[in-house]
Amino acid sequence: MKPQNRVIIENVTPEIDGGKYPAKRVVGQYVDIKAYVFADGHDVLGADVCYRHESEKNWQTTRLTELAELKSDIWVGRFLVEKQGYYYYKVRGWVDHALNWQHGIEKKVKDGQRVHVELWDGVQYIARLQKNKEANTVHKAYFAKLIDLFESAKEDETKYTEAVKEALSTTLHHIFEQYPFQQFVTEYDNSLSVYVDRKTALFSALYEFFPRSASQEAGKHGTFKDCERLLPRVADMGFDTLYFPPVHPIGVAHRKGKNNATTAQAGDVGSPWAIGGKEGGHKDIHPELGTLEDFKSLIKTAESYGIEVAMDYALQCSPDHPYVTEHPAWFKWRPDGTVQYAENPPKKYQDILPIYFETEDWKALWDELLSILLYWCEVGIKVFRVDNPHTKAFVFWEWAIAEVKKKYPDTLFLSEAFTRPKVTHKLAKAGFTQAYTYYTWRNSKQELIQYMTELTQGAEKDFFRPNFWPNTPDINPYILQGGNEALMLIRYFMAATLSSNYGVYGPVYEFNVHAAVPGKEEYLDSEKYDVKLWDWNKQTKISVLMKLVNKARRENSALQETNNFVNCPIQDEQLFAYYKGSQDGKNHVICAVNLDPYNRRGGTLQVPIHLMNIAQHETYVVHDILTGNSYHWRGEYNFVELDPYFLPFHLFVVERLR
Amino acid sequence: MKPQNRVIIENVTPEIDGGKYPAKRVVGQYVDIKAYVFADGHDVLGADVCYRHESEKNWQTTRLTELAELKSDIWVGRFLVEKQGYYYYKVRGWVDHALNWQHGIEKKVKDGQRVHVELWDGVQYIARLQKNKEANTVHKAYFAKLIDLFESAKEDETKYTEAVKEALSTTLHHIFEQYPFQQFVTEYDNSLSVYVDRKTALFSALYEFFPRSASQEAGKHGTFKDCERLLPRVADMGFDTLYFPPVHPIGVAHRKGKNNATTAQAGDVGSPWAIGGKEGGHKDIHPELGTLEDFKSLIKTAESYGIEVAMDYALQCSPDHPYVTEHPAWFKWRPDGTVQYAENPPKKYQDILPIYFETEDWKALWDELLSILLYWCEVGIKVFRVDNPHTKAFVFWEWAIAEVKKKYPDTLFLSEAFTRPKVTHKLAKAGFTQAYTYYTWRNSKQELIQYMTELTQGAEKDFFRPNFWPNTPDINPYILQGGNEALMLIRYFMAATLSSNYGVYGPVYEFNVHAAVPGKEEYLDSEKYDVKLWDWNKQTKISVLMKLVNKARRENSALQETNNFVNCPIQDEQLFAYYKGSQDGKNHVICAVNLDPYNRRGGTLQVPIHLMNIAQHETYVVHDILTGNSYHWRGEYNFVELDPYFLPFHLFVVERLR
Repeated sequence: MKPQNRVIIENVTPEIDGGKYPAKRVVGQYVDIKAYVFADGHDVLGADVCYRHESEKNWQTTRLTELAELKSDIWVGRFLVEKQGYYYYKVRGWVDHALNWQHGIEKKVKDGQRVHVELWDGVQYIARLQKNKEANTVHKAYFAKLIDLFESAKEDETKYTEAVKEALSTTLHHIFEQYPFQQFVTEYDNSLSVYVDRKTALFSALYEFFPRSASQEAGKHGTFKDCERLLPRVADMGFDTLYFPPVHPIGVAHRKGKNNATTAQAGDVGSPWAIGGKEGGHKDIHPELGTLEDFKSLIKTAESYGIEVAMDYALQCSPDHPYVTEHPAWFKWRPDGTVQYAENPPKKYQDILPIYFETEDWKALWDELLSILLYWCEVGIKVFRVDNPHTKAFVFWEWAIAEVKKKYPDTLFLSEAFTRPKVTHKLAKAGFTQAYTYYTWRNSKQELIQYMTELTQGAEKDFFRPNFWPNTPDINPYILQGGNEALMLIRYFMAATLSSNYGVYGPVYEFNVHAAVPGKEEYLDSEKYDVKLWDWNKQTKISVLMKLVNKARRENSALQETNNFVNCPIQDEQLFAYYKGSQDGKNHVICAVNLDPYNRRGGTLQVPIHLMNIAQHETYVVHDILTGNSYHWRGEYNFVELDPYFLPFHLFVVERLR
Repeated sequence: MKPQNRVIIENVTPEIDGGKYPAKRVVGQYVDIKAYVFADGHDVLGADVCYRHESEKNWQTTRLTELAELKSDIWVGRFLVEKQGYYYYKVRGWVDHALNWQHGIEKKVKDGQRVHVELWDGVQYIARLQKNKEANTVHKAYFAKLIDLFESAKEDETKYTEAVKEALSTTLHHIFEQYPFQQFVTEYDNSLSVYVDRKTALFSALYEFFPRSASQEAGKHGTFKDCERLLPRVADMGFDTLYFPPVHPIGVAHRKGKNNATTAQAGDVGSPWAIGGKEGGHKDIHPELGTLEDFKSLIKTAESYGIEVAMDYALQCSPDHPYVTEHPAWFKWRPDGTVQYAENPPKKYQDILPIYFETEDWKALWDELLSILLYWCEVGIKVFRVDNPHTKAFVFWEWAIAEVKKKYPDTLFLSEAFTRPKVTHKLAKAGFTQAYTYYTWRNSKQELIQYMTELTQGAEKDFFRPNFWPNTPDINPYILQGGNEALMLIRYFMAATLSSNYGVYGPVYEFNVHAAVPGKEEYLDSEKYDVKLWDWNKQTKISVLMKLVNKARRENSALQETNNFVNCPIQDEQLFAYYKGSQDGKNHVICAVNLDPYNRRGGTLQVPIHLMNIAQHETYVVHDILTGNSYHWRGEYNFVELDPYFLPFHLFVVERLR
């Protein structure tokens, strides 16, 4: 920066930890830039953002404009990201003496001042434009005329009026803007970037089931072939990602019995998260599920249905895992010669050995763990749901995710870290594409509004992509344990419409199973330790609604983003409503939810009509695309009523009549 | 950082712009450190802050502790700064396996688990301590005993109980803390610093008058000798800094007449801010005030009264300034051959030429402007009140202030920038010690609470030191124009007790002069363009209160800080109360102000007794040190009543009875 640079640039957003981490976007999204840009004194400034994809050499430029508020010093602009990978961007600012000159004349003329010398002074700005080859080719004659006018106006009063008119013209203003006066340009200190993923990173619907429960026959262990037969069902319900708990060999030593019993009985299948046995480890398939070929076939068939298979990446080993003998340095050993099992005192997890990330043999360890990911990428996996990433070293994730993305940029990582905010945010910064969230426990209207505001307007909005789950095999939330079918519908509906990424632990949800281990948020007779027989031919009200909601999500781009959430005030403490508008301004959705699963409730909803350019007394139509009903609404305040025994929510698409 | 490092450190405060600028403190203050420190998993962590003065080589260390809240991940600590200049500090964190081992045993024992192997495992942590020379010298026998116990407990049940007891002992805990297990230590990325000033930077009371009005005779231009005669008066009132508008030669060309008239009449003295004439420029003394020797004598005599003379540093020139002919490149020229005068269209300031900071001759310009400061430092000036710094380049200030401080570290810079927040903050970051504020226009209770909260709890608290002024020669605030003596008292009192730095444009304030130019916040017949005759022998109620308040400020260290402001809820919308406690916890002050200058008001004040360790039903005494009255209060809620015609405020010092 030169000593004559007068412009200061501060607080650019998005900026994650001073530029240490990239912001996140998907292909086709805008990056909204905001920055403080100011200088000493009162001169008119110019500012822009320069950006380029990592594969490009040249910077593209788009202008920033100052927020309309009086002297906010806040400048905004946006650019579109169209390719996967990194985009770099930098914000610049300068004193625009040409625009300043024009602005000064404008104010002085308004004040009744004579501006002969000022006009004359303007010659320098036109002369500067003349030196710009492109500008001068287009505007040669115009420039010459202006110079003549500005110079002669000082002596020739007949030319003065015309000179003032020309000096203030919007034509000249636009030329000044197109070819800005950039004598001393300040560039923001930190180098910033955004990482762009494929669209699925922001818009996906996950269905989870245990492949071993995919069989249609009692007492039979499900296989990948069984899973393949269920694909049409999953596709018909509109899910695009099918997530399986680990499919690797399960350990025998310290295997857990049914209901998490410390000792397994004969025939107990164990937890699929206790990975590794004599049949192999993380790169192997549990024999009872089938072969690698079966798995490949499943992935391929799924693809033909528009479904991606998500794999569980769980970095822990059963005591029988080959790593234990092959790489003892990767585990922590106790003085009695046993390996340290996982524990969070006083809790013990004897069927699982944690990886020892502080090992001196870290290099070989990291390489092997990465090779697992690369192996399955090669097989065709594009989505990894990562089990408890918050109990493994952050630096490892930062490295491993980057390495995978170099080779397989389509790969997405879903972080299953139900832990403190700072930890979940750090994982997101380290590269996780999406994350499980606290949605599972945000139940009241106030909690939901506050949480959505945090996620979509807090600092994390640019790097933490939420994925909402009403339940998981690990979490049978208290609220659902006591709830009726309406409540199951409500919790599902909000997950799928508040967040553009969501998932559901499917069969128990569809079939409204919610018996719990008393006092715990655990499913009774949990599938984690057992094989279940589900009636996969059954359709429930919940299944039908899932299909309708997924269809609505696909057809309405407003539901394909999360940060566009806008709370709509509604006069009932159990009614919750929100608006979402698509980036292109064409699709407008309003969701209204009755959080009370037992009583019909009504209230007046305040529609954010200004976001849809609807006038105060304008009539428009809202179509409930779940029921097919339409209503004529008018202006800002409109009444809604919801009966939970019929349907506890509306999913309105707004249609303007003119 | 090693790949095995598991601890993450984020969001350290104080941190200004990623460490680009230092935080600010004065000698004897604490630097309170706060940081997010966390790791993967559930292990016990340790963290500390290392700090050193720029003159020292070795780092000192003080431990951070996690905030008591459950798993906040927020760690805090503090260190004292005792010398002027830069201190550097860095935050570090590590997994403390020794403490983690102890904590694990504690939880398991509580849970009724047997811990033979765990005890045995502890041998490694004791062995590690044995290798620490210092630790082993003190605890040699103890360590040997522990190792024996932990090893033998696994076979000898009689030793088990004792081994557990020793493993959990606080003695061992303290030794672990004193010699922490620091295998992989993470250090925070950004290098941080704090700049420490002398105490006056945080605690000062400024009195401003125009030296040309110091005469006691009608029609006579005041001199430095006259000013010298007024020193006992200023000292008696308890002010420690005497600030004069510019004392340099005043230009004749385009000199302003009385009441800011564009054309001066014969005998008009002009604005002292139109610096420079045939008698010289910024390094010269206006002949009518006296000689350089007179000025030096004034500074010296003032010193003997404990008063520092603050000089006005106003970087602008009258058209007669020698720079105009000697350095034409330092000004902007218009095509008609005239120099561009100051303007903010449509406003014109023809008696003032701005400096052209974009000049190619910037190096010579900067050197000259710096030499002005160094010249007056050499003469004995330690405080510069800088006129409109926001209309000069920020980079210049950053450089110039740093250069002055290298040679004269005692020098303080007060920024007179009444402009947008981002600009005033940037000047503070660039090195200004203190700043004028919006206090002058914060009148209502809500405005005052909000502004104080912003200043003392917002990000600026670590770099922006407010200086509160109820008025200045440029600002006769609307609220005072219509106010009575009580209001003058109120606005003065709050300036002096809310902020530890404050100033007052003295004579008009003491003598309750507030006639204004109609519709403007300008004094009528402003002293800026005139010589005034004040009755310097007069004492008013306001003068007396100034003396009492200044005395209270000197005697109560709680009033010598600003960031210790705590609002005290009080049940009346015109009653405003606040608590301030000293850093050492010994001095407690409560101010209660009636903002209504016309009516007696009473209300119940909520005393922050928890900050004084006063119990809910405890009786204590509050002494009003302005009136000498004392009251017995009890517990949290106490009644106050204030009659503005007597005194619109209390200044209580709290005394505990036990």
